[in-house]
Amino acid sequence: MKRMADVGEVALLRRLCRRLPGRPDVTVGAGDDCAVVRPDKRVAFDWLLTSDPVIEGIHFTSGTPLAGVGHKALGRVLSDIAAMGGEPLWALVDVVAPPDRPARLLDDLYRGINRLARRTGTAIAGGDLSAGTSLELHVFGVGRVPAGKAALRSGARPGDRIAVTGRLGGSIGGRHLRFAPRLREGAWLRRHATAMIDLSDGLATDLRRVMEASRVGAVLEGESLPVSPDARRLADARRTALDHALFDGEDFELLVTLPAGRANRIMAEWKRTQRTPLTLIGTVTDRVGRLELQSPEGRRLIDRMAYEHFR
Amino acid sequence: MKRMADVGEVALLRRLCRRLPGRPDVTVGAGDDCAVVRPDKRVAFDWLLTSDPVIEGIHFTSGTPLAGVGHKALGRVLSDIAAMGGEPLWALVDVVAPPDRPARLLDDLYRGINRLARRTGTAIAGGDLSAGTSLELHVFGVGRVPAGKAALRSGARPGDRIAVTGRLGGSIGGRHLRFAPRLREGAWLRRHATAMIDLSDGLATDLRRVMEASRVGAVLEGESLPVSPDARRLADARRTALDHALFDGEDFELLVTLPAGRANRIMAEWKRTQRTPLTLIGTVTDRVGRLELQSPEGRRLIDRMAYEHFR
Repeated sequence: MKRMADVGEVALLRRLCRRLPGRPDVTVGAGDDCAVVRPDKRVAFDWLLTSDPVIEGIHFTSGTPLAGVGHKALGRVLSDIAAMGGEPLWALVDVVAPPDRPARLLDDLYRGINRLARRTGTAIAGGDLSAGTSLELHVFGVGRVPAGKAALRSGARPGDRIAVTGRLGGSIGGRHLRFAPRLREGAWLRRHATAMIDLSDGLATDLRRVMEASRVGAVLEGESLPVSPDARRLADARRTALDHALFDGEDFELLVTLPAGRANRIMAEWKRTQRTPLTLIGTVTDRVGRLELQSPEGRRLIDRMAYEHFR
Repeated sequence: MKRMADVGEVALLRRLCRRLPGRPDVTVGAGDDCAVVRPDKRVAFDWLLTSDPVIEGIHFTSGTPLAGVGHKALGRVLSDIAAMGGEPLWALVDVVAPPDRPARLLDDLYRGINRLARRTGTAIAGGDLSAGTSLELHVFGVGRVPAGKAALRSGARPGDRIAVTGRLGGSIGGRHLRFAPRLREGAWLRRHATAMIDLSDGLATDLRRVMEASRVGAVLEGESLPVSPDARRLADARRTALDHALFDGEDFELLVTLPAGRANRIMAEWKRTQRTPLTLIGTVTDRVGRLELQSPEGRRLIDRMAYEHFR
C-alpha cells in the first residue's frame, strides 16, 4: 500500500486537480495562489478565492503566542490575495481546538486576527468552532482585482528580470508571526508583472513554481539577494545566510517577473513611490526547469528538493 | 483557569461575534447559516459565504467509507446555502491527513466530493492539502441569491406555521453520508418563508436557533412530526422514534416558518409542484424562548440541552 508520505503533496495534488468539477465562470482554478472567478461580465472585477490552514505542530509550535498565530493564519490568506495583485474583502475563520485548552485561547487568537483584519480593511464575516485533537485555524478569504488583471504564476518569459520585495530568510526568528502582507505592493506590481507569487515555502521552491507554470528556467544572482538580518543571525558553519535566504519558508514577500526592456524604469518608479525594498535578483531563462545560482565562484545548479508536506 | 469545555461553544462564539471587524458590504455577518455580502450594487445578486469542518472522531468514525465523508463535507456547506434559499457556485476544500494514511484516501474522498459537486453545479475551485494528526476536511462555499432575498433565521413571527422537508431522525443509520442538500427546495421556500434554517444539530436545537434569532417561542405537534423509517428502526425502550426525530442531528432537512394566512395555499402549491415531502409540524408563539411539545397527553416543555462541542 502506498502511503501519502510515499507519494508526496505535489504528486497527490497534481493527480486530484485534473479531475475537479469546474464552471465556465472559473477563470483560474486550483494551482495558483488564488482561484479567479468572473460571475458577471458587467462587473469591473474578478474575484479571488483562497484558503490556508495553520496547524499546531506543523505551522507553529505549542507555546507560540496565540495572537501571532491568529495574525499568521489571516496573513497567509492575505498574502495569497496580494500575490494576485488583489484587494481583500471578506474572510471566514474555522477554529479547531481541544476542549481542555483555556477558554481565553480564542480571545488571544482573535486579537491577532481582528487587528490584521482592521488594518487591511478585511471583514471577518463568520466561521466555525469545533472540538478536535490539535489546535488549527482554517481561513478562507475572498478578494477582488480589476477584471482580467490578476497576476498569475504562468506569464514569465525568457529574458524577464526577477525581483523580490523585502528581505529574505530567517522568518522563523519571529517575522512569520507579524509580517505585513504585501497588499499595496502587490496591487502596484500587478500593473507591470508578467508573473507573481508570494514566498511561503522559500525563494527556491516558489520560484520553481513560477518556472513550472511558465515553462521557463531562471538564474539567481547570489550577491544580489536581499538577505535579512534574521538570516545573518541564524547563519553558522552548517548553513550560510545565503542558504537561509534561498530556502527558508514563510517570508511572505512577493516574487515578481518584469519585462526586461522596462525593468529599469519600473524599478526607478518604485523607488520614487514605495517604501518597501524591491530588489532585482535574477533573470528568467529558456532552460525549462533549470534553476541556477550565479556567484563570484561561478554558476551552479540549485537542485535541492523543495519542502513537501507528507515527506 | 476556565477551559473551553467549561464555557461551551455557544457562549464562546457569542463573545467573539460581538467584536468581529465588519465592512458596509456585509449584510449579514456571523450567526446565520451563511454570511451575506453584497459585492456590487449593480449586480442583482447577494453572495453567501459559509464554511464547515468534518473531523474524524467528531463528525465521522474511522472506518467510515471516505466517499461518504467527502459527500458529507461538501453537502454540509451546500445545505447551509440551501437554508438561505441560495444557489451554489464555488467551493474550496482543505484536507488535513496523517502522512501514514493510504494515498488512495484522497481519491476516495474526492469521488464523493466531485460527484455531489457535479450534481449541484458547484465548481471545486481549489483548496489545500496539509499533514496533521487526524483526518479532516474544511470546505468553504460561495453561493448566490437574488439581492435582498436571502432567507434568515430572524424573521419568524407569532402565529407563523412551522414546516419541515423530508423525514426526521436516525440519520446516523447512513443518511448523513448520502443526503441530498435541499437546494431546489430552499430556493422555492425562500419566496414564502419568514425564516429558514437547515437541520444540522437536531430539530429541537435548530428550531431554538430560529426562536432566539426571531425572539419568539414555538409549539410542535408531536403527532405531526414526519418520523423517518431510520428513527423507527432505532427506537427502543430508552428512546422513542419521536425522541430521535426531535433530537437526532444531521438530518440536513430545511425548517421553515410560513405566514399563517397563506400557509395552506403554500402547502397546496408545494404539493402540486414538488416531490420532496413538506409537513406542517407546529406554530410560532409569542412566548419568547419557550419550546413546547403538544401530544394527545397534553403539552410539555422541551428543555433538554442542545448538543454543544466542548461539553
